Amino acid sequence: MEIKDHCIELLLSRGVNVNDIAELVFLLQKDYVQNIKIEECLESVDRVLSKREVQLAIMTGIELDILCEKKQLNDKLIEGIIDRDEGMYGVDEVLAYGICNLYGSIALTNFGYIDKLKFGIVEKLNDDPNHCNTFIDDIVGAIAASAASRFAHRKAGDILK
Amino acid sequence: MEIKDHCIELLLSRGVNVNDIAELVFLLQKDYVQNIKIEECLESVDRVLSKREVQLAIMTGIELDILCEKKQLNDKLIEGIIDRDEGMYGVDEVLAYGICNLYGSIALTNFGYIDKLKFGIVEKLNDDPNHCNTFIDDIVGAIAASAASRFAHRKAGDILK
Amino acid sequence: MEIKDHCIELLLSRGVNVNDIAELVFLLQKDYVQNIKIEECLESVDRVLSKREVQLAIMTGIELDILCEKKQLNDKLIEGIIDRDEGMYGVDEVLAYGICNLYGSIALTNFGYIDKLKFGIVEKLNDDPNHCNTFIDDIVGAIAASAASRFAHRKAGDILK
Amino acid sequence: MEIKDHCIELLLSRGVNVNDIAELVFLLQKDYVQNIKIEECLESVDRVLSKREVQLAIMTGIELDILCEKKQLNDKLIEGIIDRDEGMYGVDEVLAYGICNLYGSIALTNFGYIDKLKFGIVEKLNDDPNHCNTFIDDIVGAIAASAASRFAHRKAGDILK
Repeated sequence: MEIKDHCIELLLSRGVNVNDIAELVFLLQKDYVQNIKIEECLESVDRVLSKREVQLAIMTGIELDILCEKKQLNDKLIEGIIDRDEGMYGVDEVLAYGICNLYGSIALTNFGYIDKLKFGIVEKLNDDPNHCNTFIDDIVGAIAASAASRFAHRKAGDILK
Repeated sequence: MEIKDHCIELLLSRGVNVNDIAELVFLLQKDYVQNIKIEECLESVDRVLSKREVQLAIMTGIELDILCEKKQLNDKLIEGIIDRDEGMYGVDEVLAYGICNLYGSIALTNFGYIDKLKFGIVEKLNDDPNHCNTFIDDIVGAIAASAASRFAHRKAGDILK
Repeated sequence: MEIKDHCIELLLSRGVNVNDIAELVFLLQKDYVQNIKIEECLESVDRVLSKREVQLAIMTGIELDILCEKKQLNDKLIEGIIDRDEGMYGVDEVLAYGICNLYGSIALTNFGYIDKLKFGIVEKLNDDPNHCNTFIDDIVGAIAASAASRFAHRKAGDILK
Repeated sequence: MEIKDHCIELLLSRGVNVNDIAELVFLLQKDYVQNIKIEECLESVDRVLSKREVQLAIMTGIELDILCEKKQLNDKLIEGIIDRDEGMYGVDEVLAYGICNLYGSIALTNFGYIDKLKFGIVEKLNDDPNHCNTFIDDIVGAIAASAASRFAHRKAGDILK
């Protein structure tokens, strides 16, 4: 199996499907792009998921969430910090920036916005009391922010060139 | 004169005083810190302004704004792009991230939030038709976001240690 | 004229041609890729130069170099700091990271390596007593580091997929 | 126990003591600072280790190394990639940049240099066939690069102010 498909399955197994992410992209772009279509957002998400660095961040982050949830970390101090998603824990955001950085400054700004206001699937992940979603909510936000940035650049390309 | 004082004067000459920035910090932190005082926010802004890398970013960004405003750039293509603050121009945000990065992941998230919603002085700078504020609005947002992150880390230090 | 062509001319006017950059890519990759060809390196440089965020960083950085050289900055304090490329001045590196970040972590590591050891054209720019090359040497290093990272990812793609 | 002491013990349990890191700082700074003393380097390392974001990155990275070594990851695909430290795996560097970014652009450049040339303890970690050191070698490099940057800024402060 392709690593990309593996990542899409991993996301699904944690309650996230690509449409949820495409809806975040739609939300981020609808004020800037006339007649934006959800299919275009979906295509942009798919392209972000095709990048190797994105895939490796997804796999690493979700693995940490699962390990914490199963109480399988060796160091119980960091396990507790990740599990409670303590305010000062920023490694999840650092991983998310590793994704956003690949798509430039618009992606980073979009990520900060999503992360603060917690729209759609990000809110759902954040409010879920039964899972440790410390990493996945930031990763999903980063994928959406990146797909929105990619989309904006493509659209602008027509004008600025 | 100290470089810090030079930067505070530069900011003032472009319509920004440190209280405006402290108010952004207050706004960012009031939901997280009980009985937060504006004096504490002001002190945190002052500490951010004491860092050499922050000062050099302020001086470089404001200089570019002034040069554009005075039509003094040699390359008229980039002058126009900066002057109109075109959507795809991200060097201003890159400079802002250079500041935020010094204060960790909370600073970056805060910056994205301010940059999207444009509160207080950032909105005022952004709406000013008489000046080129392409760099300064992001720099001011970055200083506020950094001061808020610094503040949050100090407060949390008491608890997490 | 295309913005990309404008950037290539700007680089040329400051003594840098794309072959110089391709040679840096070759140097960075020759130990990792068997039978690497300079044409492949050149193609990778060309693709990096096609990105809008890269073009805008090139134009902004070179403009600052030229303005300093001509003593056209309004603020003589920052003019002196940039002109002498003072050790603590890091805005040039911040701009360079804005380029490298688009190509992932390998690009950043490569940049640090080039920046310290100053190979080829980077050394030439750095040693030139007649020009202010504070920004362009980092920008050229960043383009080379990014092109090398892009190249490495392409090659690895065949294996890891 | 203080989180800092916990991190120092964690590093020790993986074969790294603070003196090893101080020696890297010495190496990075000796050409720039006259009469540099190892005690000063050690003090700078200690200050870097006092930052909460640094501590959390150390704990997260070392935990991933240990989990991989013990074959305790749930996802065997990512376990293999981390264990072999595959060339395209960059999450370890992303974590390292999360540390370096706190200390500005000099830290990032220093990190790239150490990461390529693999001095001292970084080489030892890298060559160790009995442990998974994918994260710790980058973390150690990042701490040293950051301590060197902090040191350089302090020294320059006397001059530039």
